[in-house]
Formats: sequence, structure tokens, C-alpha cells
Amino acid sequence: MDISEVIEISGTVAFAISGAFSAMQKRLDVFGVLILGFVTAIGGGTIRDVLIGDTPVNWMRDYKTPLIILGTVIATILFKKYIKTFKITLFLFDALGLGLFTIIGIQKGIGAGLNPGICIALGTITGCFGGVLRDVLLNHIPLVFHKEIYATACIIGGVLYFLLIDRLDINVVKIIAITVICGIRIVAVKFKLTLPKFYV
Amino acid sequence: MDISEVIEISGTVAFAISGAFSAMQKRLDVFGVLILGFVTAIGGGTIRDVLIGDTPVNWMRDYKTPLIILGTVIATILFKKYIKTFKITLFLFDALGLGLFTIIGIQKGIGAGLNPGICIALGTITGCFGGVLRDVLLNHIPLVFHKEIYATACIIGGVLYFLLIDRLDINVVKIIAITVICGIRIVAVKFKLTLPKFYV
Amino acid sequence: MDISEVIEISGTVAFAISGAFSAMQKRLDVFGVLILGFVTAIGGGTIRDVLIGDTPVNWMRDYKTPLIILGTVIATILFKKYIKTFKITLFLFDALGLGLFTIIGIQKGIGAGLNPGICIALGTITGCFGGVLRDVLLNHIPLVFHKEIYATACIIGGVLYFLLIDRLDINVVKIIAITVICGIRIVAVKFKLTLPKFYV
Repeated sequence: MDISEVIEISGTVAFAISGAFSAMQKRLDVFGVLILGFVTAIGGGTIRDVLIGDTPVNWMRDYKTPLIILGTVIATILFKKYIKTFKITLFLFDALGLGLFTIIGIQKGIGAGLNPGICIALGTITGCFGGVLRDVLLNHIPLVFHKEIYATACIIGGVLYFLLIDRLDINVVKIIAITVICGIRIVAVKFKLTLPKFYV
Repeated sequence: MDISEVIEISGTVAFAISGAFSAMQKRLDVFGVLILGFVTAIGGGTIRDVLIGDTPVNWMRDYKTPLIILGTVIATILFKKYIKTFKITLFLFDALGLGLFTIIGIQKGIGAGLNPGICIALGTITGCFGGVLRDVLLNHIPLVFHKEIYATACIIGGVLYFLLIDRLDINVVKIIAITVICGIRIVAVKFKLTLPKFYV
Repeated sequence: MDISEVIEISGTVAFAISGAFSAMQKRLDVFGVLILGFVTAIGGGTIRDVLIGDTPVNWMRDYKTPLIILGTVIATILFKKYIKTFKITLFLFDALGLGLFTIIGIQKGIGAGLNPGICIALGTITGCFGGVLRDVLLNHIPLVFHKEIYATACIIGGVLYFLLIDRLDINVVKIIAITVICGIRIVAVKFKLTLPKFYV
């Protein structure tokens, strides 16, 4: 199990907890909590796979991810009182997962022969659209459209990826991009940085 | 026309009426009522087909289902006053349809070479996600996440299907699984059984 | 660049402005405005491509459309004060785009060997479902389900297309169908025509 697998699992766990937790706040039943955990964790990758036609989608061909999500949701329900204690840890996992998922999406796009701009869009979709689906199912306007910088971190990391890819070793490029995405996200939340808004 | 075709048509009709009726309650226009009827009836199967890559999706390759839904929606609008009279009949059709759609989804998953856990998920998606789309389009949190037991019936029926599949004739297994799903659903509504909820 | 390309670009621009504008009204941030512009402009075609399995979906294989939408959203943000001045122009572009997108969807359906009824549904999805996604993301019931005649224009234009296709030159048929869709839409808005509603 290499380092990127560890990050991917941590990110999946963090995303699943976020979905399950939001569902409990909205007083859904156990099935609702389970589905929200799943949708948040695998939603972005699922939309990506459907858009590029890589089907059956990723999580259907692999026992591991669904089992990890199932276990995470059960643990979230059992230990809901203690989750707030791990708030910062979870946020860091989430930020790491965001970085890694973005890079996974970009690489899938490259593999499908798409141009760099579209690959960055695919990476951003992979990182952010699980949360978009979560919020739509819970009847909110998606947080990622109006809260602290989130998707912008993916876009900046993605642009950096393509700027560096011909100059450095691929693994170095990945680490830099993930670090930048994760770093922007942490700085954004710490200093409550938001994108400008324009009312009409 | 065999028995499972009769059940499938009854289920489609019940789902289409449910969608059309919810749309009328929200004061949508005729087109909105039509779309909600369609989405509720074919939404689950459509998401399933898109996820496994079986495209063009099922209802696009078959004249019958769209025509049945169209006829059902028109009849629902014309006879809306009398529909409440058939409330129990409709509920029974809906429960039967839920059972059959779940089994159809499971069999599609087996056909696509997916593992049993994923097949059960596909069956549950087929049975439940038409209603999820209906509720999202009508700006509700999906009923299936917080009302009487619904998806859980699909999951139990699906597990039973895989437990029995090597021991009994396939048709017997299907009948048992459909009966169990349908039975759980009827008992759940009759006794107002809900899944536990965990607030945070 | 032929005439239908000019219409397609105008339609894309009009749809992107509509999405970006709605997002600004809901006080989304810059990323939210961008995504809403994209989803409104390419959502219908994306759902169509996913349903028929024509992947990677259309906008991923073409630099032009994403760049046009990006430029349109930036211009919408910069010149938001002046947009109301062009309200009528924009509405006309939107109506033209609706007509053209419907015909593009129908032709894709014919290319995929689908029957005429399904092709008309595909055309209607192409024309209308970008707006449906926009409204779902902004937490509204889709306008197209309860406001002035919209989808009905697509359906009528689509039926006309199939009635005329064996009798007239294909380009003449396209122009007639687009004109009819666009004309119905203009008349509907001018005279505030809505479809009948049936409450329950």
C-alpha cells in the first residue's frame, strides 16, 4: 500500500464522514445517512466516470471503497459525540483528499486523451461534486458555490500540474500539486478567505 | 405477456402516478406533471444504466414504456378526483413494482459481472432513485431518506436473493425476493415503521 | 462558419448569461457563477450525451465551447449593470438557441438509431435540461415546469420536423422547425401564455 493509497483512503473516510454528519444534522434515517455518506465520498468520481464513459463506474469494480465507506458511516453514527473532537484532523484529511482526488481526476482525463483545460475541469469535478450532490440531496445551495475557497484550490493545483509536468518527475509534480491544493484550502479556512461575490 | 411483465407495467404505472400526483400538488403545469411522471417511473433504471454504461438507456430502446407512462399521466390528470379512491390499490402496485424493479436491477448487475454487494446497490438504486429524483426536482429532501422503511426492504430482498440463488430455482428465488420486499414495505406502512434516526 | 454555428454560439452565450445571472441573484461567489454559467449552457447536451452513451460528452472534445462560456461569464460579471439593457436581445438569442439545440438533439437521436418519439424527447432534453439543472443547483423548482410555455415549443417543433422530413429538403425542415420553436417561445412570453395547471 503506497502513500497515495493511504491518502485516498483518508480522503474517502473524511468525505464519507462529512456526508453522514450533514445527513444526521438534517435528521435523516439510517439509510439516508448511509446514502449521503456514499454520495459525498464517491459522487465526484462517479460524475467524472460517467462524463468520460469509463463504466461501470469506478466504485462498482472494487470491493474496497464501498466497504470503507460503509464502515466509516457506521463508525460515524456510533461515535457521533466524539467526532467534533476530531474536527481539525477531519478537516486536514478532507483537504488532503481534495488534493489527491483532483490529481486522480486530472490523470484520468489525460488517459482519456482530453486537453489540459478539460482535465483540470475533470479534476475539479472529482474533488468537489460529491459535496455538490450532498448539498442538492439535503436541499441546500451547494456550499462550494458560496463558502470559503474550495474549487479554486483545485483549479490552481491543476494549472500548476500542467505547468510543471514537462519539467519535473511526475511524482514530484503530484506531490507539489496536492500540497498546493491542500495548502490553499487550509489557509482559506484558517483566514476565512472567500471568493468575491457580485450581486445583481 | 408473462407475469413479470404484468408486474413491471403495474409498477411503472404506480410510479408514474406517484410522480404526476406530487407534481400536481406542487402546482406544476402539464409539462411539469408529465416530466415528473416520467422521471419517477424511469429515473431509477436510467441512473442504473448510466452507471453500468448500458446505453442508450433502457427506455430509449423501447416504445412501450414511454407510451404507458404518457397514457398514465394523462389518465392521472383526467381522473385526479378519483385517484384517492384507489389509494390502497396504488400503494400495492407501488410495493410490487419496488420488488420487481429491485430484482431487475440485481439481474442487470449480475449480467454486467459485478459482485453481489454492488448488485444489491444497483437493485436498490433501480427501485428507489426514481423517487429521489422526483423529490429533488420538487425541491424536497427525498422521502426515502427519512420516511417509512423503503430502501431497506430492497436491501433485505437483495441479500435474500443471493443467499438462495444457488439453492433454489431462479424463478422461485425471484418470487420469494419480490414477495419479501413487497411484504416488508406493506408491513412498514401499515405499522408506520421507520428506521432509527440519530441527531447531532 | 455557417449560420447554424452562429446560432449555436449565440444560444450558448444566452444560456451562459442566464445561468451566471441567476447565480449572481442568489449571491454565489465567482466559482459558483462560473459553474452555473457552464451547467446552464452545456447541461442539456451533457445529459443527452450521457443517456445515449456518446462519451466523453460533447463539450469535453472541443476547446471552443468551454472558452466561449468562460468569456461569457467573465463579461457577464464585468458588465452586469448593462445586461438589463440587452434583455430583449438576450431573450431572442435564448429562443433561437432553444430552437437550434432542440434540432441538434433530434439529429443526435436519429444518428443513434432511436425512434422519432425518443428523438423528440432527446431534443427537448437538450434544449431544456440545462435550465433544469440550473434551477436545481439554485434550490428552485425548475421554471420550465411551471412558467411560460417552453418545453412545449420544443415538442411541437420536433413533431413538425418528423412530419416534414420526407417531404422537404433537410435544411428547409431545420429552418422551419427552429423558426416555429423560436416563434412559439416569443409569442408565449409576449402574451404570458402558460400551460394549464391542475391542482390536487
